[in-house]
Amino acid sequence: MKIEIITIGDELLIGQIVDTNSAWMARELAAHGFEVVAITSVGDNAQMIERALDIAFGRADVLLLTGGVGPTKDDITKNTLCRYFHTRLVFDESVLDTIRTVFSQKNLEINELTRSQAFVPEGCTVIPNKAGTAPILWFERNNQILVSMPGVPVEMKTAMTDEIIPRLQQHFHTEPYLKRSFLVSDISESALAVKLSDFEKELPEGLSLAYLPSFGMVRLRLWARGTKHEEEMDAQAEKLIGILGDLLVSESDASLEELLGNALRQKHLTVSTAESCTGGYIAHRITTIPGASDYFNGSIIAYSNEVKRALLHVPADVLEKHGAVSRPVVEQMAANVASLLKTDCSIAVSGIAGPSGGSDEKPVGTVWVCTFYHGKTHARLYHTGMLREENISRAANMAMLQLVRMLK
Amino acid sequence: MKIEIITIGDELLIGQIVDTNSAWMARELAAHGFEVVAITSVGDNAQMIERALDIAFGRADVLLLTGGVGPTKDDITKNTLCRYFHTRLVFDESVLDTIRTVFSQKNLEINELTRSQAFVPEGCTVIPNKAGTAPILWFERNNQILVSMPGVPVEMKTAMTDEIIPRLQQHFHTEPYLKRSFLVSDISESALAVKLSDFEKELPEGLSLAYLPSFGMVRLRLWARGTKHEEEMDAQAEKLIGILGDLLVSESDASLEELLGNALRQKHLTVSTAESCTGGYIAHRITTIPGASDYFNGSIIAYSNEVKRALLHVPADVLEKHGAVSRPVVEQMAANVASLLKTDCSIAVSGIAGPSGGSDEKPVGTVWVCTFYHGKTHARLYHTGMLREENISRAANMAMLQLVRMLK
Repeated sequence: MKIEIITIGDELLIGQIVDTNSAWMARELAAHGFEVVAITSVGDNAQMIERALDIAFGRADVLLLTGGVGPTKDDITKNTLCRYFHTRLVFDESVLDTIRTVFSQKNLEINELTRSQAFVPEGCTVIPNKAGTAPILWFERNNQILVSMPGVPVEMKTAMTDEIIPRLQQHFHTEPYLKRSFLVSDISESALAVKLSDFEKELPEGLSLAYLPSFGMVRLRLWARGTKHEEEMDAQAEKLIGILGDLLVSESDASLEELLGNALRQKHLTVSTAESCTGGYIAHRITTIPGASDYFNGSIIAYSNEVKRALLHVPADVLEKHGAVSRPVVEQMAANVASLLKTDCSIAVSGIAGPSGGSDEKPVGTVWVCTFYHGKTHARLYHTGMLREENISRAANMAMLQLVRMLK
Repeated sequence: MKIEIITIGDELLIGQIVDTNSAWMARELAAHGFEVVAITSVGDNAQMIERALDIAFGRADVLLLTGGVGPTKDDITKNTLCRYFHTRLVFDESVLDTIRTVFSQKNLEINELTRSQAFVPEGCTVIPNKAGTAPILWFERNNQILVSMPGVPVEMKTAMTDEIIPRLQQHFHTEPYLKRSFLVSDISESALAVKLSDFEKELPEGLSLAYLPSFGMVRLRLWARGTKHEEEMDAQAEKLIGILGDLLVSESDASLEELLGNALRQKHLTVSTAESCTGGYIAHRITTIPGASDYFNGSIIAYSNEVKRALLHVPADVLEKHGAVSRPVVEQMAANVASLLKTDCSIAVSGIAGPSGGSDEKPVGTVWVCTFYHGKTHARLYHTGMLREENISRAANMAMLQLVRMLK
């Protein structure tokens, strides 16, 4: 059984928003053993939507649509589906009841436009939207399925989790997608590929290895489809782990912030950060994890030298002599933030994110990271790149990675 | 002239990464007057790639491909394009020269796999990749164009900006995409649509209005294609501004962090943040803007009550009496962080991001925001939602919006 995801909205085609829905859906579907063969985005244009549906029905059994179902005039998915399936809109009192419940929770009033959401295509299955006003529409035709959902992430996620995935599981028997993930650092993608070339050549039929480089790390994915490969997967994973040795950071698909959180939790440790060029991004990444308050106390974001001096107690002469982007400064930042925020570990970062601020001696992308644990500091210099966004992301990765390795 | 973006990689179809390349490309293309009609993602599968190319050539004149061009075995785009265009790989010494330059800058050694990047399809135009090893390949056939680029964002962005967009501009004369953006807050999408229903009905032919709701705000986009609509756009924009009144936050497409940065810069003011539930996300958003150090001094991320007390000097009895998520606490946080970090303005946030930590009195999504300017605090209570990710994003939006409005 093959699935295509179709996201609808002009805002996607002019790059006003990033399509995060597709990735979320694809990940959930893969985790449940479903295979996504394509993801397509088209605009709020009836002809292009109908064409995309024709194409998708040619390569997939199930089409999952998001977007274009709001109450406003630019949203045309529902009417397009009506025409596509040769049906008409009828009023569904139960949809209005659901909307009434959602609106009363939020103290909102129902107006004519909101009420229009209760008109649904005749003959499709209407699934209540627990988080918004546009109902989820489930069409079946010639053993193929099309589901239309809202594009608002929280509404789509609620519908997928509570309704659509369970219904797809009832409809189809799926071959599980077997996957083992390996997070590797301190090696480039091509050097890693050379190191693993014999391993890849000797991989048994049905198993594949994929490389996903990301800001100073490479994620390896060993995968296969079907339970019959289970034993072979385990054997090959063991072999791979042996070859990777110290390069291996983790055998999971977890994000760095999850790995760090798990390590801290397991050892009953707390952490704080002192950030200059990363500007709070590491603290943000750490606090995206539910329950982070168990091990994260807080941070001092010292963007200016004055804050480094006054709040982080970095001596003025150290700042003057070595500059803000230097080993002595990050060492002071790391030790002092741990002491000020009373944490067992800490992370400190100071660097030049760019585009300005670089010099011949310290070009854009020069980043000092210091991690602190057990009374010891470990400082290291990185060269992250040329782009501001990349420098912030890569510095955050290197910093979290460094503490994860220190806690091992 | 119509463009389709095709992103290639199994990692997209299992949701291991979010496709941010497409949105970036779409935004740049729109800004240069090009029209993107579809975005498609397919896996590292020759048959599916070839099929996607056939489909795309049926609805677009230019295909921009990213991904699948790394040195590793799972990357098959180059070989697939060879077969698709009935050509063969030939060695290109100039590509190897470019790789040598890039590698010597990064102190990396060239191995066999890297060297294999210098084999390129015969007959296509090879464009140097200034940021990596895989060359950019430009194919022309029957007045249609296909360009293959690396999926690594920095390599794709460099190629698009320096080479591909200028070359497309030489090839095609484009009708400019006219756009006016309006950021609106303090009203729901459907209430706004009701308010604007007469305006929309009276819109002249060729002009369209689109709604993009995002975490407590709505972005309106008034748009048309072709310079002949310019005068009408201005007139309709004036009319819309009149109707929106105080709901209008900004007449630009700028992000909130840009709006805030511009406002601070214009008034020569500095800012700091004191964050609890947003965990540094506001500081991060502020510091994504180049040159933020001109107006952003730093932050205290006070995730624990102890840090709120010790570092932000929120009196223990205030914390005890009102709880961390309360008006008196955020008022103290805002005033104190501004004083400690010597800034003119500040933002303070304390709330319950969830999933745990809620109570009947203060459920998940309860967020207090206080902004500080000119010696005055302004505190407001928000109810952001049920999901942690949404609560953090929405709280950050509301907080920055509140300061942007205060600075007006």
